[in-house]
Amino acid sequence: MAEKEKLTIAVLSGDLERALAAFMLATTGAAMGMEVNMFFTFWGLNIIKKNEGGIKSKGLMRKMMNLMNRGGSKRLKLSRFNMFGLGTWMMNRLMKETKTPSVDEFITMAHQMGVKLYACSTSCGVMGIPDDAFRDEVEDFAGATFFLGEAREAKVSFFI
Amino acid sequence: MAEKEKLTIAVLSGDLERALAAFMLATTGAAMGMEVNMFFTFWGLNIIKKNEGGIKSKGLMRKMMNLMNRGGSKRLKLSRFNMFGLGTWMMNRLMKETKTPSVDEFITMAHQMGVKLYACSTSCGVMGIPDDAFRDEVEDFAGATFFLGEAREAKVSFFI
Amino acid sequence: MAEKEKLTIAVLSGDLERALAAFMLATTGAAMGMEVNMFFTFWGLNIIKKNEGGIKSKGLMRKMMNLMNRGGSKRLKLSRFNMFGLGTWMMNRLMKETKTPSVDEFITMAHQMGVKLYACSTSCGVMGIPDDAFRDEVEDFAGATFFLGEAREAKVSFFI
Repeated sequence: MAEKEKLTIAVLSGDLERALAAFMLATTGAAMGMEVNMFFTFWGLNIIKKNEGGIKSKGLMRKMMNLMNRGGSKRLKLSRFNMFGLGTWMMNRLMKETKTPSVDEFITMAHQMGVKLYACSTSCGVMGIPDDAFRDEVEDFAGATFFLGEAREAKVSFFI
Repeated sequence: MAEKEKLTIAVLSGDLERALAAFMLATTGAAMGMEVNMFFTFWGLNIIKKNEGGIKSKGLMRKMMNLMNRGGSKRLKLSRFNMFGLGTWMMNRLMKETKTPSVDEFITMAHQMGVKLYACSTSCGVMGIPDDAFRDEVEDFAGATFFLGEAREAKVSFFI
Repeated sequence: MAEKEKLTIAVLSGDLERALAAFMLATTGAAMGMEVNMFFTFWGLNIIKKNEGGIKSKGLMRKMMNLMNRGGSKRLKLSRFNMFGLGTWMMNRLMKETKTPSVDEFITMAHQMGVKLYACSTSCGVMGIPDDAFRDEVEDFAGATFFLGEAREAKVSFFI
């Protein structure tokens, strides 16, 4: 059997609009028969954190950082016109109205379509984000070497 | 005749500096003999909206959103040092002084060089942006499937 | 001898987290035996400016712009949670604690591993940034044609 063409997407941003774009491309790729890998790093990790519960980390600075930077797909904001939540709220309403999946729904959908989600091990180490902070759809931790290895084999790669 | 190498650029950002970078690459690619396709999504749609007139959309939320997020190549701002317009104004002046094309001029130039501009149909649907909001240089609407199909065939792809 | 696979990275952003991601990928690529070229444009130029001394440019606007937009790897800030420097300070502390190289150290390391750093000649021209504003690790100035030429030959390209 012929090998599938690969699509590799690195997601550094935790902005709502970029998360949507990333999953729109990932699910489209999977629907087109591509093998899709997504690597979440830095603010992008917020997208794949659980929406429920707190994040337990060690040390005062990490505790503070993970409190302020809570994350979760339902807490993502637009990078512009957030307007204390109003712009983001309107966008979520308009998406619902037009039956566009939310990021939360996109994650489940992508997972069901076979898209693999990886959390950047280096970012997690620096920021002290524990394993149990992430959703079940997340496959594993992975470093830059694994990501770049995938990108080298990929037909298409994006850095979002 | 040999097929041309393709360059595919997705533009999600509506920041002045990213719009400039995108068109600089697009026109350079066209000048090097590449077939260039640009896909504008989300804030990136602002770049290819008409500078004149208002945007007519239906429903209160969409009306509000399109009023606040008016767009047009002449209204783009720097993401940093905008300083209530002063930084952006200075940048535009310095570009003029060094004979660097404005985004507005770049769009015309790119179009004349055969660069194809596409507006993301999903974003337009969600935000209620009508056809007549876009400049004449815009080729058509297109979705993620069309874009990813182009990226798969492309020699180089960028997500900006 | 077989030619090395190329990795080409354009860095438009001057945010601390994106600078880190760019150099993490660049050094990983070099360690994997790839030929790596980095092109710094717009705010990304701040990353490769010298940390010491001022920037001498001509004309009032350029002087103002280079004063406000001083740059230098040690002055980079997080795009979010900077909180008047507190978030950035915490991130730098956490990186030190986990022995993650700083951007400053990454630049030296990348250079020693053979990664080539180029400064966008167009941006430098527009913003009036003189040659001596850049660190010794910077190879040369280069334009969009050179960058796109490299990207066409590259196995992997990123726009950060």
